[in-house]
Amino acid sequence: MSAFLLRDVRPLGGVVADVLAVDGLIAAIGPAITPPEGCTVEDGGGALLLPGLVEGHSHLDKTMWGLPWYHNDVGPALTDKIDNERHVRAATNHDAGAASLAMARRFLAAGTTAIRSFVDVDTDAGLKHLHGLLATKATMAPVQRMQVVAFPQSGILRRPGTDAVLDQAMAAGADVVGGLDPCGIDRDPVRHLDIVFGLAQKHGKPVDIHLHEPGEMGAFSLDLILERTAALGMRGTVVVSHGFCLAMIEPAARDALLARMAAWEVAIATTAAPSRPVPTVPMCRAAGVTLFAGNDGIRDTWGPYGTPDMLERAMIVGLRSNLRRDEELGWALEAVASQGARGCRFEDHGLTAGSRADLVLVAAQTVAEAIAGRPRRALVVSAGRVVARDGVLVGGV
Amino acid sequence: MSAFLLRDVRPLGGVVADVLAVDGLIAAIGPAITPPEGCTVEDGGGALLLPGLVEGHSHLDKTMWGLPWYHNDVGPALTDKIDNERHVRAATNHDAGAASLAMARRFLAAGTTAIRSFVDVDTDAGLKHLHGLLATKATMAPVQRMQVVAFPQSGILRRPGTDAVLDQAMAAGADVVGGLDPCGIDRDPVRHLDIVFGLAQKHGKPVDIHLHEPGEMGAFSLDLILERTAALGMRGTVVVSHGFCLAMIEPAARDALLARMAAWEVAIATTAAPSRPVPTVPMCRAAGVTLFAGNDGIRDTWGPYGTPDMLERAMIVGLRSNLRRDEELGWALEAVASQGARGCRFEDHGLTAGSRADLVLVAAQTVAEAIAGRPRRALVVSAGRVVARDGVLVGGV
Repeated sequence: MSAFLLRDVRPLGGVVADVLAVDGLIAAIGPAITPPEGCTVEDGGGALLLPGLVEGHSHLDKTMWGLPWYHNDVGPALTDKIDNERHVRAATNHDAGAASLAMARRFLAAGTTAIRSFVDVDTDAGLKHLHGLLATKATMAPVQRMQVVAFPQSGILRRPGTDAVLDQAMAAGADVVGGLDPCGIDRDPVRHLDIVFGLAQKHGKPVDIHLHEPGEMGAFSLDLILERTAALGMRGTVVVSHGFCLAMIEPAARDALLARMAAWEVAIATTAAPSRPVPTVPMCRAAGVTLFAGNDGIRDTWGPYGTPDMLERAMIVGLRSNLRRDEELGWALEAVASQGARGCRFEDHGLTAGSRADLVLVAAQTVAEAIAGRPRRALVVSAGRVVARDGVLVGGV
Repeated sequence: MSAFLLRDVRPLGGVVADVLAVDGLIAAIGPAITPPEGCTVEDGGGALLLPGLVEGHSHLDKTMWGLPWYHNDVGPALTDKIDNERHVRAATNHDAGAASLAMARRFLAAGTTAIRSFVDVDTDAGLKHLHGLLATKATMAPVQRMQVVAFPQSGILRRPGTDAVLDQAMAAGADVVGGLDPCGIDRDPVRHLDIVFGLAQKHGKPVDIHLHEPGEMGAFSLDLILERTAALGMRGTVVVSHGFCLAMIEPAARDALLARMAAWEVAIATTAAPSRPVPTVPMCRAAGVTLFAGNDGIRDTWGPYGTPDMLERAMIVGLRSNLRRDEELGWALEAVASQGARGCRFEDHGLTAGSRADLVLVAAQTVAEAIAGRPRRALVVSAGRVVARDGVLVGGV
């Protein structure tokens, strides 16, 4: 038995408590817990305790973090960015394994103990990037949970043969089947979605579809996604990423789509992009739809922004949805914690007995202050093991 | 004569140069400058050199930075926030002098050498907060330029007697006359604007008007503002803060207003609020309108967000306007530097001979990286004097 007791912390800013972890799970949380024999004891000093943070939409394979600055001179269209990236990666022999490992470690040091990452698979690169991500997943497995989404960034139908590469990716160990703008990129929504959902059925895996499509076009694609979710009985296993269309269509049409999403537990992943219409936190809460957050690309050929810090993403969620009251900032935290775990199905997440002992301590008075100020993480615990102190990985991680 | 030579820096990421400051001004900038006798020499180590940063729209009097966390439970309307704040400040005896000084110092440590701050004047507080701001301005004068805007936060006509308080504020040393939502708050745009512009004429001072009003209502108020600007020949001395309406009306009507703003050099101050329609950088560049940025409130009763770091604000400007190319991120820097100086009329700003020697060094390869990553300021020089190192004030500041 391995036991770890974290004393004198304030879970989500509430009353002071101790947290006892046994064999990686929270065994008890409450006042003045007596440590079992041989238990490691850590003093939390009254700091704010957050659950392990969840990065719900990332592209760890793409990042150029730590490399020489990428001078971005890319055109404005989505296809400009897609084509540029595929060429740059081939020309520079970009190492998705090294890039993703460096970024996963930075995320962990900032308290992110669960990550969903897309990885590009296409007819140029094949499964090269996927193997890099799977290696990172295996390396980090003792201290960080990771889901890898096989993602047809360059389209499926636009580049014939991609469906077979996706199939191979799922066979090789990808956790989720990805899709992308069935109308806007692939120009044949039925065939695109039939391939994506067909692979999900074949491999018994969930689906996560990038849907940038605006207005009525996006709503049409979403309608087709929901139709297939219901027909295949895939409750709780479909995520729509971005979903800009939901913020662009008439409220009645939007609410009808949101009601179907709630019924089939189709979740939305968002970056809370300040420059785009996005589904907001209040909109999704009112509809009972799970909304969670991710950084999307961090410092890659798509754009220069982003840091591997989910509290910074929570701040952007708060700014984008104009969340100001302390209660509302609690919702922003949920978007990078409980809602992320629910949407991605990272089981046993949370600050309750029986959950995985993923614990994050920050020097802040309240959850709202933690989000607004994003202080360095004083302590990060993953599955009952101390993995970082003051923003730096420790303990051989 | 006081001389300071900063060696081996890359102005805006360009070729390596030295910068010589004499008596607080840049005397020369170029390769291998020979220091005059008795000159202090500092090695820049090849770091990126930025000009002094400009905070163009702040409310230093309101911040609760460093105080116990303010639990925000305020209602959603603008008047909810205004009334709540006035009551909280009276009840807690909020010290605008101490708050503004603490924040001005944090801004300086992060490279902000010029600040425009509003300060509330009203019939409850009178000039109390103004005196606090003027004290901060005087204290910081050797190392930081500050403009104080007398701001009728609670309205002018809604609270009779405020016009007289504003007049007293200008007589007491305020630099700029403030106004606020002539239709939306004061419900009598002509009387409101006639008071604001009348005080500007009486005291020979510029104007800065908060314009949150949406759509056609805001456009109408802006029309009235431009009418008065032209009638009084106030070219280059009027700022409209926020100007959400410009992002809400028909493009033809918007472009007509922007053309008049360009002609009369009426500038826009923006926070680049992610949750509101805002005038964007490309929109204003295309029209030849000066657009500069500020934080608005930082951690006050209005909201929990914000940090005294103009590179973080530049990042939000970039995110809000979807600026991704390196060239575009240069525009985001301008919004917190040259455009701020132009809009607020901080004279002699910039990295050219004859300008004030306000210099900021950061460990970044490019301007884009400085904005995306917001590294700690390695060195801050104000008027040729080193005032901060590694984010900490030095030299008795």
